[in-house]
Amino acid sequence: MCELLGMSANVPTDICFSFTGLMQRGGNTGPHRDGWGITFYEGKGFRTFKDPNPSCHSRIAELVQEYPIKSCAVISHIRQANRGGVSLENTHPFTRELWGQYWTFAHNGQLTGYEKLDTGRFKAVGDTDSEIAFCWLLNQLEARFPERPENMDALFDVMAECCDQLRTLGVYNMLLSDGNLVANYCTNKLYWITRRAPFGKASLIDEDMTIDFQQETTPNDVVTVIATQPLTNNEDWTRMLVGELCVFEQGEVIYRRHGEPHPDAKGTP
Amino acid sequence: MCELLGMSANVPTDICFSFTGLMQRGGNTGPHRDGWGITFYEGKGFRTFKDPNPSCHSRIAELVQEYPIKSCAVISHIRQANRGGVSLENTHPFTRELWGQYWTFAHNGQLTGYEKLDTGRFKAVGDTDSEIAFCWLLNQLEARFPERPENMDALFDVMAECCDQLRTLGVYNMLLSDGNLVANYCTNKLYWITRRAPFGKASLIDEDMTIDFQQETTPNDVVTVIATQPLTNNEDWTRMLVGELCVFEQGEVIYRRHGEPHPDAKGTP
Repeated sequence: MCELLGMSANVPTDICFSFTGLMQRGGNTGPHRDGWGITFYEGKGFRTFKDPNPSCHSRIAELVQEYPIKSCAVISHIRQANRGGVSLENTHPFTRELWGQYWTFAHNGQLTGYEKLDTGRFKAVGDTDSEIAFCWLLNQLEARFPERPENMDALFDVMAECCDQLRTLGVYNMLLSDGNLVANYCTNKLYWITRRAPFGKASLIDEDMTIDFQQETTPNDVVTVIATQPLTNNEDWTRMLVGELCVFEQGEVIYRRHGEPHPDAKGTP
Repeated sequence: MCELLGMSANVPTDICFSFTGLMQRGGNTGPHRDGWGITFYEGKGFRTFKDPNPSCHSRIAELVQEYPIKSCAVISHIRQANRGGVSLENTHPFTRELWGQYWTFAHNGQLTGYEKLDTGRFKAVGDTDSEIAFCWLLNQLEARFPERPENMDALFDVMAECCDQLRTLGVYNMLLSDGNLVANYCTNKLYWITRRAPFGKASLIDEDMTIDFQQETTPNDVVTVIATQPLTNNEDWTRMLVGELCVFEQGEVIYRRHGEPHPDAKGTP
């Protein structure tokens, strides 16, 4: 399995704090030694840093932790390989252009029977279940919407249906962004938190590090962080439900297709 | 105008030396202050570093200069904006997937009438003439070859014809790679050099720096460097002709469609 980290914000925000927590899971506090990657959007463009080596020993990961790249939409992933070998082409996130925008995708989970998915014109370059699922999803969206739809809720409805289909193949926790939207789909573990004024302090679970967001923000900032496990131990993270699709724009929820309770949940979540 | 730098090698080779020379043209010895980018292939995967800021002041450019990323195929570009604003989405190189491979492209020159090019399913994200030309080129290749052809010479013939068409729109010097091949098309300035045993020393034109390749290589290494201007002042660079397409694989020429002499050339080149 792997770890996911996403961010949606209304002002360009750096993700150094959360990324520092995630990176520790890349071989130090976690077993995810098979690569990591992070994509930052800047306008319609993006930059991706990735490495098939463990994140806790990566010089490029050090740069990303130290260098405050500010972005309104971020997708990140650290990997423990289950499908597909350890190589750069199998390292998330994956990016493809659709409707004149770059779409970026990362997946946590494991699928079976994915080889039969018809990806149409979107061909996978590597051999992971994740990249094939991504290509299939984009192909489905393009088949239904040859142009980017004006009614985005219609797009999200179809996206949710497609994610439901992928969930029938196994565990499918997903982050997907076009640089403006950050869409998240949960099978079994995906948590989010929205930070806004009045900002407090937060302490990382994976590293002895505390941040006072009040020092780092202005009163109008809205920043949502999404992760496969809560990254801080003194804040209330919302656990997404089974089959829930939640889409953020500028840090705010703009679409939510509710899911079902987790089998392991006690009572109503 | 811009500067291009490409490399094709038969063993993973770092490009720090040549990149150091190129970076100086990004605001120090050259006027190309509007961004830079570099793509390194590793197997079927790639990494791209890019920045809309001048290369000579970029922290990411420093990392690339100091960190010997080894690759058999590299495409790099520094930019002086003429078409399209200064932004990340307008910063070369550009990458798209075709036939299950990532194709990466950089362009030197300036085109007119490019808005009318039909790019089909490959939509430009930014608004440069270069990205539109790239999308059009891929669309043409896919229209002629729905699958990657086994006869690569047939592909290169079509590629050369397409580049000829783009040259009718203006100056079109191009680097294009799928990670295995590095294809180069010249309108007015593109030079290359193949280094192989016995290796000698080389001195950069743009910075007081000499390298002894014998210390850095094994006797079987073959490394070709392609650039819009020779980067060293003590080696013989081959100037490509007008309309010439030259394709390298593992450092060796595997296809050459000869061009015409340059109008500014004295006698036969």
